[in-house]
Amino acid sequence: MVFNVLVRTIEFAKGHGTRNDFVLVPALDGAPELTADEVVFLADRRGGIGGDGVIRVVPVEHAPEEVRAGAGDARWFMDYRNQDGSIGEMCGNGTRVFAQYLVEHGLESGAEFDIATRDGVKRMTAGADGFEVDLGAWRLSREDVADERGSDSVVQAVGAPEPLPALSVDMGNPHTVVALPPEFDLSTIDLTLPPRVDPHPELGSNVEFVRAVGPGHIAMRVHERGVGETQSCGTGAAAAVVATWWWAGAPVDQLDWRVDVPGGRLGIRLHGGHVLLSGPAEIIARGRVALPDS
Amino acid sequence: MVFNVLVRTIEFAKGHGTRNDFVLVPALDGAPELTADEVVFLADRRGGIGGDGVIRVVPVEHAPEEVRAGAGDARWFMDYRNQDGSIGEMCGNGTRVFAQYLVEHGLESGAEFDIATRDGVKRMTAGADGFEVDLGAWRLSREDVADERGSDSVVQAVGAPEPLPALSVDMGNPHTVVALPPEFDLSTIDLTLPPRVDPHPELGSNVEFVRAVGPGHIAMRVHERGVGETQSCGTGAAAAVVATWWWAGAPVDQLDWRVDVPGGRLGIRLHGGHVLLSGPAEIIARGRVALPDS
Repeated sequence: MVFNVLVRTIEFAKGHGTRNDFVLVPALDGAPELTADEVVFLADRRGGIGGDGVIRVVPVEHAPEEVRAGAGDARWFMDYRNQDGSIGEMCGNGTRVFAQYLVEHGLESGAEFDIATRDGVKRMTAGADGFEVDLGAWRLSREDVADERGSDSVVQAVGAPEPLPALSVDMGNPHTVVALPPEFDLSTIDLTLPPRVDPHPELGSNVEFVRAVGPGHIAMRVHERGVGETQSCGTGAAAAVVATWWWAGAPVDQLDWRVDVPGGRLGIRLHGGHVLLSGPAEIIARGRVALPDS
Repeated sequence: MVFNVLVRTIEFAKGHGTRNDFVLVPALDGAPELTADEVVFLADRRGGIGGDGVIRVVPVEHAPEEVRAGAGDARWFMDYRNQDGSIGEMCGNGTRVFAQYLVEHGLESGAEFDIATRDGVKRMTAGADGFEVDLGAWRLSREDVADERGSDSVVQAVGAPEPLPALSVDMGNPHTVVALPPEFDLSTIDLTLPPRVDPHPELGSNVEFVRAVGPGHIAMRVHERGVGETQSCGTGAAAAVVATWWWAGAPVDQLDWRVDVPGGRLGIRLHGGHVLLSGPAEIIARGRVALPDS
């Protein structure tokens, strides 16, 4: 009962980037805090609003001390929570939707600004197609093995019968990228079960299946660790490009890439050892939501 | 961009009854109309708001003539649309959420009122636990066969190896109800694929799997025709009770039933050949949503 004064209602917005969707909650004076149960409620697609994650919009002065200490010039803290109520350090598409929210609400106005996350400060740059975020440095997780063999692991998935060579890429989180041979189609792979990665990474891995589309252009599907198949994954797109580029011999004239994900198209740019992610981001609704009795 | 004046934004609310969820759009002067694409957008759980259906809240004087003609004393028309943009005639849980919306917005105030639907007028009655809706008359679809054998068809589903006897119940839409024998648990049935009904109903059927919990109390899971497994189905709960009651010998002292569905608990009442559905309904959020460029 939204209009019953006894019920606690809070402001929210809903936004998405290539169908990676978020519930945003402005906490412009530091409040509201959100309990894990309230995050689960907000992210619930049937009983609540629904989203892959929940983002509180918090002024840096109200951020936790460890975030504030390293925030530099950032004025806003992206307090990211996973769908299950746990705290998330970073989310690439999340930063782009967060930046879009800040600009639409007049909280930032420049073409370039920093935002604070639990994974440090992220530089946001406005482009024709939405904000670009610097995801930071990439590295091959098992560079010695990869250098020797061209791959460092194999992946098995339903719909792709042979074990396929794969490359492990560290984007701050673990990725295993598989290049599909021409006789397989991305759509034939069944990702209802997690693909099997051998050797098995101790903490699991996100797995990206990649097909070449054209020069500087790939298509991918992703199985996110602990989540399942998703419509889009920013660090996954970054890892997919890093692997494809590395397999192509790291051409210095091919640093701008397009990545088709099920939810749309992302841009990936390799620059000075960093990976930058861009693409559309939209705030589609705003309103008030009634929190359940606690 | 919600705040860009060039974008068309409309009011919305989100509500659910036992996790059967709906996007409500007030059209208090008959506008906005919604195209099929706009309904699909609003019902989209990632790119839009998300719901099993979309309901326009329309004064009867702005309803289509065929609805207006049979509206009687009803003041409001529930313009129900399915998730895929098509027009829906009726939705039991939808009427309860619709009635809750009318009362919370001061559009109805009585403990009893009629609402107009494409399936005729539905009488709503306020109860302790939310509104009760009269779903109308039930009948056995193949009464002659059922009378002779106690069932009129068999159902096969993954996780329930034997063909199980089933009863076809017409609630305005077709249902096939299966009573699970004690050695099976509701949770062991796999409803990712549609259960097989033999003889196959020409237009398909919703299928309910029922377990007795106690006197006047059943649990069920439902596979909705053309949709898949859902968290709740009002006419499905009604059909499940009708079949269970009929199998029990139609006891005249057992007319009030509780039905546990994955999304919560519904009440079903048998009265004068009609079935009445009750249960919780909540409006959890309201706001404005930006419609995509058409």
